[in-house]
Amino acid sequence: MKASFYQGNRTITVKDVEPPEPGPGEVRLRMAYCGICGTDAHIYHGAMDKRVSIPQTIGHEASGVVEAVGPDVTDWQPGDPVVVRPLDNRGETAADRGFSHVCAKLKFIGIDSPGAFQESWVVPAFTLHKAPAGLDLKTAALTEPLAVACHDVRLSRLKADELAVVIGGGPIGILVALVAQAAGARVILSEVNAYRLSFARDLGIEAVNPMDVDLPALCRERSGGSGADVVFEVSGAKAAALGMTDLLAIRGRIVVVAIYPQPIEINLFHFFWKELQMIGARVYEPEDYEQALALMAQKAFPVERMITAVYPLDRIGDAFAALDDGSDGMKTVIECRGS
Amino acid sequence: MKASFYQGNRTITVKDVEPPEPGPGEVRLRMAYCGICGTDAHIYHGAMDKRVSIPQTIGHEASGVVEAVGPDVTDWQPGDPVVVRPLDNRGETAADRGFSHVCAKLKFIGIDSPGAFQESWVVPAFTLHKAPAGLDLKTAALTEPLAVACHDVRLSRLKADELAVVIGGGPIGILVALVAQAAGARVILSEVNAYRLSFARDLGIEAVNPMDVDLPALCRERSGGSGADVVFEVSGAKAAALGMTDLLAIRGRIVVVAIYPQPIEINLFHFFWKELQMIGARVYEPEDYEQALALMAQKAFPVERMITAVYPLDRIGDAFAALDDGSDGMKTVIECRGS
Repeated sequence: MKASFYQGNRTITVKDVEPPEPGPGEVRLRMAYCGICGTDAHIYHGAMDKRVSIPQTIGHEASGVVEAVGPDVTDWQPGDPVVVRPLDNRGETAADRGFSHVCAKLKFIGIDSPGAFQESWVVPAFTLHKAPAGLDLKTAALTEPLAVACHDVRLSRLKADELAVVIGGGPIGILVALVAQAAGARVILSEVNAYRLSFARDLGIEAVNPMDVDLPALCRERSGGSGADVVFEVSGAKAAALGMTDLLAIRGRIVVVAIYPQPIEINLFHFFWKELQMIGARVYEPEDYEQALALMAQKAFPVERMITAVYPLDRIGDAFAALDDGSDGMKTVIECRGS
Repeated sequence: MKASFYQGNRTITVKDVEPPEPGPGEVRLRMAYCGICGTDAHIYHGAMDKRVSIPQTIGHEASGVVEAVGPDVTDWQPGDPVVVRPLDNRGETAADRGFSHVCAKLKFIGIDSPGAFQESWVVPAFTLHKAPAGLDLKTAALTEPLAVACHDVRLSRLKADELAVVIGGGPIGILVALVAQAAGARVILSEVNAYRLSFARDLGIEAVNPMDVDLPALCRERSGGSGADVVFEVSGAKAAALGMTDLLAIRGRIVVVAIYPQPIEINLFHFFWKELQMIGARVYEPEDYEQALALMAQKAFPVERMITAVYPLDRIGDAFAALDDGSDGMKTVIECRGS
């Protein structure tokens, strides 16, 4: 079988390897599709070389079909269409208090252990969710980022008719906007990039450029003067973090989705003055995967349109290189199975 | 009657004035005691000259006895012992969504309108809470700061046996620690000042100096490795704001009690990694006043020991000057009634 390997220094090679055998509690999947995440791009750029073991197969936004099961696995049969929730919480302890998905010794499969950019992949059986009948496996590869959005929206305690602002219109920001709209919220997406603004609008999202529009004033206008109920900070931009508290109503909530490697300035006076709340959100829990799959099965929104490029596994290096050439695109997916 | 007036430039004068008459919906109190708040000290230092109307009577941590009622006031009779919740929400609008205590046009009585450092004070009847029988009016003057602490602890959703860290051992920090302990939590107070450390310990609070103790390690040690459940940031110190996220367990909560006039660096990575929450808290709601009065009535802790100095109204200038001379003390109270 073919497998790809990140070799460091913006290099990913593909070679033939022996298919791995599933051990106890494990399942081998024949891979269908796997999306490229922003984290994969970070790895490709060498930013996570201390964490990944070079050479390493990466990739974690995966769909596939069960190919073989380990000796004690009874819940899964060859042929089952599945998606993978790439969280290995086997290092969990009592100190984690049941928060398995963010336990201190969490291993992220595809970063801390081999990932999905290969023809066959062995994963723990507990990471699998069944793909609903009728959901094509290319769309199903969006389950992982869509589950991120479901988790973010769930932690925000967003209610129908509330006003939510999503700052940042990349793949996660757009998915958060779509999930928030599906929950009945009114959504404004804030983004500066013309392609992303247009992309979001084509999906039925109200998208504005905060350089052209007075966003705090727009939030007040849409809320009888109160301000937004929820802000999702997905951009990772310093100015967004500083300005997000301007957008909110009294007791408004912020969900921090973006990853800020360094401490950053926040307006704590606004937290005091308006009794704001801020909620950190990371990855997803099983129910978020189930919600993501349900939203796709019921075709709540045309999520498949997020996929703007598909490359065969042989050309995975080209796929990563294309992300760096500045051309427009939203989500690139690798077709992992041999054609 | 005598009344004091902040005149700007660290000057407070006392002079004889005509007692005001209560209008419709108003009550005139014969004042008993009024504590000096950190905000009063800010005003005295000239830091709030844009907000106060010089000359102005300030003071808002007040107890007294009803002396006269306006024509339509039926709930209160002369002789009733009372404390004042100094929030005038008569400018509240629908855009405030019922959060009266932090409504956009809130007037803080004693800052935005005349305060309690005088022999008689006219206030809206809706600001009054009855002081329980048997509660002396000097102790009752602590209701306002104690209600701040009750509000902070309530918004933290603190549960019995949880581990709470209070950063900052001034009057509010100590009251937060006492209320948290009364709620059954285990409390560590972090403070660098030797007098305040000793003061807190004398009240039965475990108080540590974070310069001498590895506070994150202590939190883990006390929680089976998890970290603290709640941090109350009461210090207003830059280093405390940056370090507070180190103390917390997964899904830990921070209550921002201190007022940070400028944006400040926060470790948002910790918010993401541990799914932390931060909650802004400001003043109090009626139920917080009722809880504060109940805690004092049941003598849950010796709150009266917070009062370390009492000055007669005639010497209010000396009382404010003494706060600046660097001598030790926790809460100074002005005795407002003529002796």
